[in-house]
Amino acid sequence: VSAEAPPKAAAASSGSKAAFETLEVTSENNITTIRLNRPDKKNAITVGMYSDIMQALEQAAKDDSVITVLTGNGDYYCSGNDLNNFTSIPAGGVEQMAKDSGELLKNFVNAFIDYPKPLISLVNGPAVGISVTVLGLFDVVYATDRATFHTPFSQLGQSPEGCSSYIFPKIMGTAKANEMLLFNKKLTAHEACDLGLVTEVFPDGTFQKEVWTRLKTYAQLPKNSLAFSKQLVRGMEKEKLHEVNNQEVERLVERWLSDECMNAIMSFFQKKSKL
Amino acid sequence: VSAEAPPKAAAASSGSKAAFETLEVTSENNITTIRLNRPDKKNAITVGMYSDIMQALEQAAKDDSVITVLTGNGDYYCSGNDLNNFTSIPAGGVEQMAKDSGELLKNFVNAFIDYPKPLISLVNGPAVGISVTVLGLFDVVYATDRATFHTPFSQLGQSPEGCSSYIFPKIMGTAKANEMLLFNKKLTAHEACDLGLVTEVFPDGTFQKEVWTRLKTYAQLPKNSLAFSKQLVRGMEKEKLHEVNNQEVERLVERWLSDECMNAIMSFFQKKSKL
Amino acid sequence: VSAEAPPKAAAASSGSKAAFETLEVTSENNITTIRLNRPDKKNAITVGMYSDIMQALEQAAKDDSVITVLTGNGDYYCSGNDLNNFTSIPAGGVEQMAKDSGELLKNFVNAFIDYPKPLISLVNGPAVGISVTVLGLFDVVYATDRATFHTPFSQLGQSPEGCSSYIFPKIMGTAKANEMLLFNKKLTAHEACDLGLVTEVFPDGTFQKEVWTRLKTYAQLPKNSLAFSKQLVRGMEKEKLHEVNNQEVERLVERWLSDECMNAIMSFFQKKSKL
Repeated sequence: VSAEAPPKAAAASSGSKAAFETLEVTSENNITTIRLNRPDKKNAITVGMYSDIMQALEQAAKDDSVITVLTGNGDYYCSGNDLNNFTSIPAGGVEQMAKDSGELLKNFVNAFIDYPKPLISLVNGPAVGISVTVLGLFDVVYATDRATFHTPFSQLGQSPEGCSSYIFPKIMGTAKANEMLLFNKKLTAHEACDLGLVTEVFPDGTFQKEVWTRLKTYAQLPKNSLAFSKQLVRGMEKEKLHEVNNQEVERLVERWLSDECMNAIMSFFQKKSKL
Repeated sequence: VSAEAPPKAAAASSGSKAAFETLEVTSENNITTIRLNRPDKKNAITVGMYSDIMQALEQAAKDDSVITVLTGNGDYYCSGNDLNNFTSIPAGGVEQMAKDSGELLKNFVNAFIDYPKPLISLVNGPAVGISVTVLGLFDVVYATDRATFHTPFSQLGQSPEGCSSYIFPKIMGTAKANEMLLFNKKLTAHEACDLGLVTEVFPDGTFQKEVWTRLKTYAQLPKNSLAFSKQLVRGMEKEKLHEVNNQEVERLVERWLSDECMNAIMSFFQKKSKL
Repeated sequence: VSAEAPPKAAAASSGSKAAFETLEVTSENNITTIRLNRPDKKNAITVGMYSDIMQALEQAAKDDSVITVLTGNGDYYCSGNDLNNFTSIPAGGVEQMAKDSGELLKNFVNAFIDYPKPLISLVNGPAVGISVTVLGLFDVVYATDRATFHTPFSQLGQSPEGCSSYIFPKIMGTAKANEMLLFNKKLTAHEACDLGLVTEVFPDGTFQKEVWTRLKTYAQLPKNSLAFSKQLVRGMEKEKLHEVNNQEVERLVERWLSDECMNAIMSFFQKKSKL
């Protein structure tokens, strides 16, 4: 991969990079960038997209890049789990669907817990659900001032995932975290920054320019020193995070099969169909 | 219990609710509210009141309400442990008194650690000592801007309780927590909010109106989803919290029997009697 | 030691205080103060100075003082590890040097983890490297507004120490901590205070006057109550901190022997020799 080539050409010329239906992945300047690429669906994550992201992360972990970036194409960062994931019931019925979804979610979150290099999120617009909860597993989070952060679990009869039940209280204290995790409070970018979920907020007009200048500087730092430092920071609680992930998923599988949750999701689709 | 009935009538009509000498307990709109009711004593907690609060929490945990609220009647939220608790020496002498007080405190704090539903504190005025330290065990804390937060342990030759020695540093970092826990710093409501001990601060004039509007919305959310989410957030460290509580109480029992503490409490009553 | 005598006279008259080449140690008003005393070298820490600080802490732990203070003489607080420590290669070669340096660092950090009394840092100017990372092990940190906080590990091919890989994320969240620990961000005093690394910031002109007034008040509080409270706050994670310290040092010894680090340090001295 030539560092001088523009992103898309570089990706195209790289034989080792798989092409993804739902992602755009590029490598240049020691940086591998994974872009969520369903802008017309606000980058909602489908079942196939969960797998794509895991595969893209696995490749980026092994490539020559120094840092890895995740961001969204279009106006949204990510609107969270695509609720249509719950509408195609497999042969095993809803129990099987809940079990499969739980397994997928667990592996997806593990891919972030175990990621070996510095992982940076560029929150280019509103973020919802799972795209918010896994932010605590990134090493640095830069956001445009247009970004918002919303985790409406209880509204949908569900419960927190992405290790947020452990990491959010750790970052911001339970008194702040619970307003998000229990009572559906939507944070502005500046609120999320004050609470430590976001590293820094930039004006939307200069967001891309400012963060990429910074990222290019970071990507010139000694590669191993960065990876080892990241692993030191995260390694200390890796075991705990896996335990948290397991418990959250176990609880969520029960929730998905509850009347509270089924009614909330049905109500969501009924409202949508009336629009 | 009819949700339409006014609070006191509802409490009166509810056969299952015990009447408490030191508390006012009401249930309506899916919310059970426990009000500390010794306003002429700034809601200082007597030995009997510790037991009343534990019993009220036990009942609220089992009733049909979705969320539980603790607040104070009058100008004060709570002035902490009633130091008169230390003046009636039982037959077993001061050693027995210290041991009994420790056992009571341990059970009191455990009642908060293990509370199964969302537990919300409305800090309606100044808060002192144990009423501040257990705030870290609530899920959401709303405060009037008249509230202050004061834990003058070392002044009285004592040491932190209510799991504050673990939770305060976790929320705000040791550099901030120790100024409160070691050096008696009194926080304003806004300082407590900036440090994450308080979720949000409201002007005193609109405090009650604004928080109750919000609480009524929360109480309409799916009950099980909220309870399970709360247990997920808190469950992860429940074992640790019990261990902390045990160690804090053990240390405090020693402190109560120390010359430093006895002299400090005697000096407190001497000053008071001169007023 | 007479509490009325001026600091230096008190130190001189105290038979039990060792004289240190690199430190100035005084005791008065129940406060033992350890001053880093290489102002012409910005208080960079030499091999001998690490040992002096450990010895001074050991003495202060045993003396009659209630609190212990660490600060710097001159314009700097401390410029961190003296890189000349890496230029005198012992008979055992660089492997022996890395091993010895690791052992020294581990013991140095342990002296802070295990310190039994309230330990207060007065950051009187810029702070770099190890002098920043161990701040998380102090109980209270007061800083002049001239202070800055810089941990340029990755620039030098190294990795975090002083338990910062565990404590910094705990205090400020990973999103903020990693910008310092991975990407060399230098914090102002006010930024460090907002993130919880610093307790309070004072204008440089009144810094000394304001903090010493406060410290003298603290030093009048019951001695045992303070020591026991501090041990309660810190004791809960002491085992964890020793584990973190071991892992950080192990990683750093590997780093010191890596090409990345050797090249970065050689480059540092080459630039310096060209000035």
